[in-house]
Amino acid sequence: MKIGLTRAGLGDIGSDERFIELAGAYGFQTVDLDAVGLVTRHGVDGARELLAKHGVEASSIGLPVEWRTTDEAFRNGLGKLRDAAEAAAAIGVTACCTYILPSTDAPAARFMAQAVRRLRLCAQLLGAYGIRLGLEYVGPHHLRTRWANPFIWTQQETLELVETIAEPNVGLLLDSYHWYTTELAAGDIAKLQPHQIVHVHLNDARDVPVSEALDNDRVLPGDGVIDLAGFLRALASTGYAGAVTQEVLTQSPPTDPVETLLERSKAGFDKAFAAAGLR
Amino acid sequence: MKIGLTRAGLGDIGSDERFIELAGAYGFQTVDLDAVGLVTRHGVDGARELLAKHGVEASSIGLPVEWRTTDEAFRNGLGKLRDAAEAAAAIGVTACCTYILPSTDAPAARFMAQAVRRLRLCAQLLGAYGIRLGLEYVGPHHLRTRWANPFIWTQQETLELVETIAEPNVGLLLDSYHWYTTELAAGDIAKLQPHQIVHVHLNDARDVPVSEALDNDRVLPGDGVIDLAGFLRALASTGYAGAVTQEVLTQSPPTDPVETLLERSKAGFDKAFAAAGLR
Amino acid sequence: MKIGLTRAGLGDIGSDERFIELAGAYGFQTVDLDAVGLVTRHGVDGARELLAKHGVEASSIGLPVEWRTTDEAFRNGLGKLRDAAEAAAAIGVTACCTYILPSTDAPAARFMAQAVRRLRLCAQLLGAYGIRLGLEYVGPHHLRTRWANPFIWTQQETLELVETIAEPNVGLLLDSYHWYTTELAAGDIAKLQPHQIVHVHLNDARDVPVSEALDNDRVLPGDGVIDLAGFLRALASTGYAGAVTQEVLTQSPPTDPVETLLERSKAGFDKAFAAAGLR
Amino acid sequence: MKIGLTRAGLGDIGSDERFIELAGAYGFQTVDLDAVGLVTRHGVDGARELLAKHGVEASSIGLPVEWRTTDEAFRNGLGKLRDAAEAAAAIGVTACCTYILPSTDAPAARFMAQAVRRLRLCAQLLGAYGIRLGLEYVGPHHLRTRWANPFIWTQQETLELVETIAEPNVGLLLDSYHWYTTELAAGDIAKLQPHQIVHVHLNDARDVPVSEALDNDRVLPGDGVIDLAGFLRALASTGYAGAVTQEVLTQSPPTDPVETLLERSKAGFDKAFAAAGLR
Repeated sequence: MKIGLTRAGLGDIGSDERFIELAGAYGFQTVDLDAVGLVTRHGVDGARELLAKHGVEASSIGLPVEWRTTDEAFRNGLGKLRDAAEAAAAIGVTACCTYILPSTDAPAARFMAQAVRRLRLCAQLLGAYGIRLGLEYVGPHHLRTRWANPFIWTQQETLELVETIAEPNVGLLLDSYHWYTTELAAGDIAKLQPHQIVHVHLNDARDVPVSEALDNDRVLPGDGVIDLAGFLRALASTGYAGAVTQEVLTQSPPTDPVETLLERSKAGFDKAFAAAGLR
Repeated sequence: MKIGLTRAGLGDIGSDERFIELAGAYGFQTVDLDAVGLVTRHGVDGARELLAKHGVEASSIGLPVEWRTTDEAFRNGLGKLRDAAEAAAAIGVTACCTYILPSTDAPAARFMAQAVRRLRLCAQLLGAYGIRLGLEYVGPHHLRTRWANPFIWTQQETLELVETIAEPNVGLLLDSYHWYTTELAAGDIAKLQPHQIVHVHLNDARDVPVSEALDNDRVLPGDGVIDLAGFLRALASTGYAGAVTQEVLTQSPPTDPVETLLERSKAGFDKAFAAAGLR
Repeated sequence: MKIGLTRAGLGDIGSDERFIELAGAYGFQTVDLDAVGLVTRHGVDGARELLAKHGVEASSIGLPVEWRTTDEAFRNGLGKLRDAAEAAAAIGVTACCTYILPSTDAPAARFMAQAVRRLRLCAQLLGAYGIRLGLEYVGPHHLRTRWANPFIWTQQETLELVETIAEPNVGLLLDSYHWYTTELAAGDIAKLQPHQIVHVHLNDARDVPVSEALDNDRVLPGDGVIDLAGFLRALASTGYAGAVTQEVLTQSPPTDPVETLLERSKAGFDKAFAAAGLR
Repeated sequence: MKIGLTRAGLGDIGSDERFIELAGAYGFQTVDLDAVGLVTRHGVDGARELLAKHGVEASSIGLPVEWRTTDEAFRNGLGKLRDAAEAAAAIGVTACCTYILPSTDAPAARFMAQAVRRLRLCAQLLGAYGIRLGLEYVGPHHLRTRWANPFIWTQQETLELVETIAEPNVGLLLDSYHWYTTELAAGDIAKLQPHQIVHVHLNDARDVPVSEALDNDRVLPGDGVIDLAGFLRALASTGYAGAVTQEVLTQSPPTDPVETLLERSKAGFDKAFAAAGLR
């Protein structure tokens, strides 16, 4: 497994160029970024060289398609998705991810049919570029009743959605925070096949009752109460060899300097991987 | 369009052999029946001859798969579906239908994913035999709250399910009772393409407020308040050329003799088709 | 059925604006054109108004994707396809068509797998815009051996490809020239369901042996030996209500003035439809 | 990886009960057998106990569907497939395999479309039982021209077929004999994802020019010239953890006693795994 970064939780880290440089400098192997922007600014070769120079790989992009609302919004995203897939594939990205909120104001059954239909087309389009689609279930309890109707929020339900989409290049984005807030065990990860895991997020949770852990109140890996060692060990046991990427959503931007945050992030990863017996 | 019968609403009509004979005798052109039973008792050639002798075609079979409950029940139905498809195709049947209840005790989103997945396999299996799968939405209001969670009950939602299943041989079973209880207009049918309509049921409703019309308290075509002429005219305008089949669900079996019921049924069809300008 | 025009066989007809104007002036109801160009020049509303002003509908666009060669070329076309689908849907187009050459220098089996895979993605993308994909088989005998390996060229094989793609919005483009050069009968068309027909081309053939009819040596409807009345009668019998569009491929551009060609085209259509008992 | 046996190459080994017993006695961990027969004779629980008693797992069944010829033959197989899937799943089998001959008397393109269509339905049906479909490419040169038209015989083409079928539970059956006769390198296996490999056959080839190696003239692992150590090492490097199963096709049944053949088989496996550094 490789350790990686998103920008979330690092405050104002600046341009993606700076993000890549700092990721490399602090020992991270992958970054999640805006592939189209990077390729637009540097060209494909330039973007590749920049990543290589800092010893960093681009690992995942966000799904640039609004699949949750109107047909018109969805259609508008398809052009962006094509462009994003082309840019992402050109710089070595093999994952594109989206999250699934646990409740919705839309009627739940109809919303599920729409999700299957639209995510299926996204998966097909990504598949033409050798990119996989990762679906992230979202565990925090408060979001389950945030909108009118319960949708899905468990690993099992998300695997069922993956199976229903029925394209070979769809799987899970596993996030330690959602694993924790849905109260799964290490065994629930260990039983997965590696190809069912498209991408992984690493986060930690405050020491509050699980049902009170807020989605946007996460802490750096190692600063909280999640059994990250157990999470990582289970992941490794599946044969998963991709990126494990920090994504710390917070209510307000952190005030520490970026360098401090990166140092602490790296130390948190090292500690968790060591505790898991993986480094 | 051809006029047809199911056994529902005809009391104790006896064997399928008797059903076929009476359907022919009273001027109906199609029947919905148990294809496996007929082929088992008569062989393929015998079953064909029996139908031909009475001038009746077999039009649709029920989906013999429990797609609403456990994986085990679903799997058990797959063998029956294969056998039913073979028998049905052998005697000229091109439709296989199931209904979708408007509420469910299962979580609605998960139930929808399961429905898509399982009905897709059913459609594929039927497709190997040249048979189409018809999905019937169910309109009566009392069933929308009969189970814990609302599911789907409109033509539009059912078309979306058809689109999500994404197999070319899936469409609607339109039932005048559900068209009436979902308060659609003739135009909602007229805008359909003929291949979106797999099968049609003709029923009538008592003169009670629409929201109080019970699913199992239907009356013979012509004995109620539904604008069957408008329904039929809209159907014909799409180019639909298949069967329009009576299926009168009642709370207790009718007490009139079968012959009387058939006579009244035929008269009801004749009146509705004449009013629609179709005969 | 509506009568329509492509630009093929009309010489130098000028801009699409001029094409629309002339089509309307000579009594044609539909045109096949470049939707993106029209919308780019006039905006969606302007393009719609222009069409409406001349009483002409836009009926079909060509598939702007190179699905026959490299992955790179295919991928490049996907962005164009998205843009074309958006523009086409905005001006009312519901068909997008491509032709299938009867032989190929690629290994035939592998080429078929590639065709299924790529055309399936095209169909899905078009489906998000309510547009159908029409596949045109190509009958002229000389093309069957033009490249190293035989591919497919019959209606039946093309229907099998449609079935294999397995998306609900795929069907045939029927062309009278290919119907003639594959020596089909009217009955072969009459047995189709209307939704299996996405678009129709009308052309005529010189009085040479069928096996010598060249793909790019067609003549205007009525100037040749094809039983166009039988073709149209069979089409109408299926319930097909879409466009029947002239597309006269010739070895060199016609030398007659456009107006003469349009007059002769319209007369040819009138004669064929009258002979079919359709006007 | 587990070592396993098929009956091929072991002469007259008797009943499947005897086969299971001997497999266990000679240190093999898996067998490929007739799941329906075993479950019919012993019931599900009895079959499971029998396997457990001998420390042997059932690993793969053959696809009991004739997907290469008529629609009628194909349809007839679907009932068998459902029954086989049920029996196989009940005793823990997760793979069902079929082979693809490198040439065919059918037109190649049409045959490919048919293969995609039919294998897709087989995959869907198997998927309902948690079973994967493995496709085996067949390398020996003499079979490439055995029938009229070349079909597919390389790993790459077979991966493309897998992608075209587009169901998540389809992958390769890798056979060392076909790997050898298509002259692939270890790297061609090493680049596969583990889920792309459904099952593996181990065989060896006589010391004749590759182009003269006959499909049904194989020898026991270790008795020939294939670099089985390289094959196994590459397999292991992918993360593949399933069965590696002997399947020695020969022109006439071997004359050695079964026990001798099993001893030699086991010794061959041990030698190859040791040379690969895997035991």
